[in-house]
Amino acid sequence: MKARVTVTLKSGILDPQGKAIEGALKSLGVDGVASVRQGKVFDIELAGSDKAKAEAALKDAADKLLANTVIENYRVEVLG
Amino acid sequence: MKARVTVTLKSGILDPQGKAIEGALKSLGVDGVASVRQGKVFDIELAGSDKAKAEAALKDAADKLLANTVIENYRVEVLG
Repeated sequence: MKARVTVTLKSGILDPQGKAIEGALKSLGVDGVASVRQGKVFDIELAGSDKAKAEAALKDAADKLLANTVIENYRVEVLG
Repeated sequence: MKARVTVTLKSGILDPQGKAIEGALKSLGVDGVASVRQGKVFDIELAGSDKAKAEAALKDAADKLLANTVIENYRVEVLG
């Protein structure tokens, strides 16, 4: 089973990396970019075919390792 | 307008970071993880409301800066 966990910074948390990308895009002449925030994505292959169990395991993984829940939000999608 | 650019490694490209996460999840006792690949996600706020123009600007941005197209694929989603 395939799944994707997307980790993004909570709103209000400063994102200097995003700011740097924003500046770089401006100097490269890419128009119309108002703001950029960078996050992480994890494409995970799981054994078994129980969707609920997979989702529980992924939430566990995100809480323990993939995301810093003090400053980051995460979203789990099981793609089946 | 909000948009999201997702950058992932092409299949066949080694991902040592993903391998490390896989190992860490196993030692943390998260069961059933067969493989992990890490990518990046950019949440971009754009000026204007022309969807086609926004998509063109984002493809330009991804080609120039956000992705290394030799080893990475990217996907642009304009969320409106």
